[in-house]
Amino acid sequence: MTTDATGTGVTEQALASLQGAADPRLRELLTGLVRHLHAFARETRLTQQEWERAIAFLTATGQACTDTRQEFILLSDVLGLSMLVETVHGHRAPGATESTVLGPFHMTESPVRALGDDIDLVGGGEPCVVSGRVRSEGGTPLPGAVVDVWQADDKGYYDVQQPGVQPAGNGRGLFTADSEGRFWFRTCVPAPYPIPTDGPVGGLLRATGRHPYRPAHIHFIATAEGHAPVTTHIFVAGGDYLDSDAVFAVKESLVQDFAETDDPPLAREFGVANPFRHARFDLVLERAA
Amino acid sequence: MTTDATGTGVTEQALASLQGAADPRLRELLTGLVRHLHAFARETRLTQQEWERAIAFLTATGQACTDTRQEFILLSDVLGLSMLVETVHGHRAPGATESTVLGPFHMTESPVRALGDDIDLVGGGEPCVVSGRVRSEGGTPLPGAVVDVWQADDKGYYDVQQPGVQPAGNGRGLFTADSEGRFWFRTCVPAPYPIPTDGPVGGLLRATGRHPYRPAHIHFIATAEGHAPVTTHIFVAGGDYLDSDAVFAVKESLVQDFAETDDPPLAREFGVANPFRHARFDLVLERAA
Ligand SMILES: [Fe+2]
Ligand SMILES: [Fe+2]
Repeated sequence: MTTDATGTGVTEQALASLQGAADPRLRELLTGLVRHLHAFARETRLTQQEWERAIAFLTATGQACTDTRQEFILLSDVLGLSMLVETVHGHRAPGATESTVLGPFHMTESPVRALGDDIDLVGGGEPCVVSGRVRSEGGTPLPGAVVDVWQADDKGYYDVQQPGVQPAGNGRGLFTADSEGRFWFRTCVPAPYPIPTDGPVGGLLRATGRHPYRPAHIHFIATAEGHAPVTTHIFVAGGDYLDSDAVFAVKESLVQDFAETDDPPLAREFGVANPFRHARFDLVLERAA
Repeated sequence: MTTDATGTGVTEQALASLQGAADPRLRELLTGLVRHLHAFARETRLTQQEWERAIAFLTATGQACTDTRQEFILLSDVLGLSMLVETVHGHRAPGATESTVLGPFHMTESPVRALGDDIDLVGGGEPCVVSGRVRSEGGTPLPGAVVDVWQADDKGYYDVQQPGVQPAGNGRGLFTADSEGRFWFRTCVPAPYPIPTDGPVGGLLRATGRHPYRPAHIHFIATAEGHAPVTTHIFVAGGDYLDSDAVFAVKESLVQDFAETDDPPLAREFGVANPFRHARFDLVLERAA
């Protein structure tokens, strides 16, 4: 079993070598991977030097990963793969909240917080209330649903990117919805931010003439018993980069008005200074299959 | 520009984002990569958990790389990609030496040695002479051609894998052909060896029920002015694993007889104990385009 000059032999051999995989799904995935990887190299007539650069790039990407940085997720994000994987499995019941990418910054556990807490531990940004209800697709509120939240600050940085500057857990909170499925918390309006550009992925963006910015957003993972969890964002309506998100994660249904609100009694109720910005939306979960 | 439920949107957006690349070849390569990567994820309906495992696998592969270990080359090797890249560009003039994979162990510079030197600095293996001629495709000898050689020892290990055990440069040599294009050196017959299995690639081999062995071989890179260099092996005829090389690198033309030789004058000429094994073959280079 040797390889001929067209390389057909090596593809057949590589595919044959995978057929002993005990797990049929692993066999399916690796077979698809080898088919596409080989087709890519054959179609592009990938050269030895290009292959060497690719090896060096992937090695550097792995070596840029630390406890607080995941450069491979970033690579998957900027190639649209992360969003595609979310979308392929993201067929939602009508009215259920659409999903979007997890992103690379969900790397620490969000601190448990009480409803109404302020997740902005630093201050100085534009005060904001986020409120809504976790509901089942039919409309039933989901008491006790868990809402995991994380966001960049008003300058566009996550706590894990600025360990000496932001306290750990800044911009993060793990909330439990009340007996009527309601959640609410205080924060600052997040800013758009560039994904980290000092690693291999930054080099890729520069080489392709792309900007590294993401439109302003807040991340959510909502979970409730008997329902499929949803990983999503809300995007700040009217902000920059909604049309050119570096990781392709914008869906129209996720763009929310952070409404300028001048309502002293409501401000008092939420414990924020008046006026404030107010994002109101529901997180609607599908029943588990 | 947002993403619809089928994921078509994200593929189109990711492809569009690459069109600003200044280098047209980079644009072509990344476009092909995104097309195939997305088609792979869509065809297999890659799940979030599978994607997470893939991210973790690639990260671990990058982090397993050191100055003396290249786990990403190993991954490319066991998926047949390295051999395919060699083969796609390996159309040789009739009679020219075929190429095969570089492999992950050409990571240190081979020490400059004189023709006839012994690259086995340890001893104990089966003594062997390797000799031949570097020629141009038409037959003309190529005086001053450079022949870079590296091999595992008679137990199947490269020097870089056993820093305390083998002296650096064991099994390696950089030779310059004489005025008639001839090269010759002494060594021991290499053993088949398993590629390293204590990293992520080893896990992949186990999960697919594959053995990690490569048939016994000696690596060569031959270069000569006005000619295309060739990266290749010679394989020891009659050895194990010629039919199931873990990296698919065997080509029939590269399998060479290491002939048992009982010839005291010749042994004296080469400076080896009689009897000895003798591999004789020419390295035939194509003229540069
Ligand atoms: Fe984010
Ligand atoms: Fe080798």
